[in-house]
Amino acid sequence: MLINKDNPNDIYSTEIEIRYCEIDQMGIVHHSNYWNWFEITRIKWLAQHGISYQELENKGYFLPLIEANIHYFKPLRFGDRILVDSEPKRPRLSLINFDYKIHNQHNDLVTSASTSHALVGAHHRPIRFPKFLSDILPKLAPN
Amino acid sequence: MLINKDNPNDIYSTEIEIRYCEIDQMGIVHHSNYWNWFEITRIKWLAQHGISYQELENKGYFLPLIEANIHYFKPLRFGDRILVDSEPKRPRLSLINFDYKIHNQHNDLVTSASTSHALVGAHHRPIRFPKFLSDILPKLAPN
Amino acid sequence: MLINKDNPNDIYSTEIEIRYCEIDQMGIVHHSNYWNWFEITRIKWLAQHGISYQELENKGYFLPLIEANIHYFKPLRFGDRILVDSEPKRPRLSLINFDYKIHNQHNDLVTSASTSHALVGAHHRPIRFPKFLSDILPKLAPN
Amino acid sequence: MLINKDNPNDIYSTEIEIRYCEIDQMGIVHHSNYWNWFEITRIKWLAQHGISYQELENKGYFLPLIEANIHYFKPLRFGDRILVDSEPKRPRLSLINFDYKIHNQHNDLVTSASTSHALVGAHHRPIRFPKFLSDILPKLAPN
Repeated sequence: MLINKDNPNDIYSTEIEIRYCEIDQMGIVHHSNYWNWFEITRIKWLAQHGISYQELENKGYFLPLIEANIHYFKPLRFGDRILVDSEPKRPRLSLINFDYKIHNQHNDLVTSASTSHALVGAHHRPIRFPKFLSDILPKLAPN
Repeated sequence: MLINKDNPNDIYSTEIEIRYCEIDQMGIVHHSNYWNWFEITRIKWLAQHGISYQELENKGYFLPLIEANIHYFKPLRFGDRILVDSEPKRPRLSLINFDYKIHNQHNDLVTSASTSHALVGAHHRPIRFPKFLSDILPKLAPN
Repeated sequence: MLINKDNPNDIYSTEIEIRYCEIDQMGIVHHSNYWNWFEITRIKWLAQHGISYQELENKGYFLPLIEANIHYFKPLRFGDRILVDSEPKRPRLSLINFDYKIHNQHNDLVTSASTSHALVGAHHRPIRFPKFLSDILPKLAPN
Repeated sequence: MLINKDNPNDIYSTEIEIRYCEIDQMGIVHHSNYWNWFEITRIKWLAQHGISYQELENKGYFLPLIEANIHYFKPLRFGDRILVDSEPKRPRLSLINFDYKIHNQHNDLVTSASTSHALVGAHHRPIRFPKFLSDILPKLAPN
């Protein structure tokens, strides 16, 4: 289980810099870019728990998305500063969810979202979170 | 209302070529790119009904996303051929939804998704679908 | 050698559809997207000569960029229609160049560019164009 | 002139985090993403000199690319850490160049590049660097 029992709200927060190339013709961040930000926070959350995503993939473990949803409450513009919160949720079998919230510099909630991921092996078949993963995740609670 | 009463299933289908740059380190299409494909189908659906998206924006009408969800059933790889179906749904006030389905060359349903859009003016305030839009949408049913 | 002796100007031309997500805040195609278009033309040029880029990579052959340059003569906007010409040039050892020209719907030359590629193996070490590659490139002249 | 006379080597250095979505099927950073990094450094260099790029565009000044070249000496992988150096060069009339160097965590020079930009107004016509721009660039030497 990927949730730290001692910290039931294991939220990772990171400031992400909006890139000029992420702004579209409407003058707002193009909606497809938010997913890349969420990915950054997931990878940083793993790193915070001592897991290098690159090593994970080198060992043949992958976490592709299987489901996602998002609400865009307010548009983001170039120059806006944002804080992205990421919280792992509901791990079970080979599945793990993440919830996200984005706040801007005025502390407005601009976006909320969630993603579901399957842990899969080299041939994209779901596998249970292995002991190997538990071993490199000492701070996380056992199944 | 943006749905053609005479054609309640106004589905626009287009083949989209997967680009090499859309494939990630896992060897599958990165999940963020699907949204760009859906956008292509929306714009082509509008074009099919005689509406140029560029002209629409030039006139101060924009259709930003306010909500979206997606299910990834099977990964897509470089060389896969895909058909993307796009269907407008549930127009009301300043809101319009689209449902999407992606099938691969084996006719497998690989992805389903939907997006909600608000029609907004230059300052990103929602506005009702105006007569001006109805005028350039002669084939679509009146409000 | 990857140039067809019988066709010294082995130019591959393809129309590419500008995507809305490629337009930036200035209202023009963001400069980084042109490289993705050139990549599409290289891969189509290979396909035209019976080489699947996916198979090439599956067999452990890769063609990363080692050098590139570009001139942007005119900006491109959403709704512009473009023809991208791609021409392989100066193959030698493990190196191959491509020259590109983009014309718009008014037949204006909007961009010219070139890329240099090394043929490399799985560990990104340059390798000479192998017989295996010549074998699947029957229409191309021998070394 | 955009070069600080008192600091002829006005180099802006910034660490940029490689994003997972920037890695391609070869397992290296896709070549198109480097241009987005250079853009980040240019904008940060301007910010360092008190110029907000967003304000610049709001005032009708734009700096599109007109020419660029790049050498990729070594591939970059996910997990590599990079320092991007950006140096403005050869300002004249409405033109400004930037040179870039990217070093990895082993201090290897992995990439060098340069871009040329034209200062243009709302209709993409070149304009000379105006007094208005000089006024908000107090630390930069006069023409």
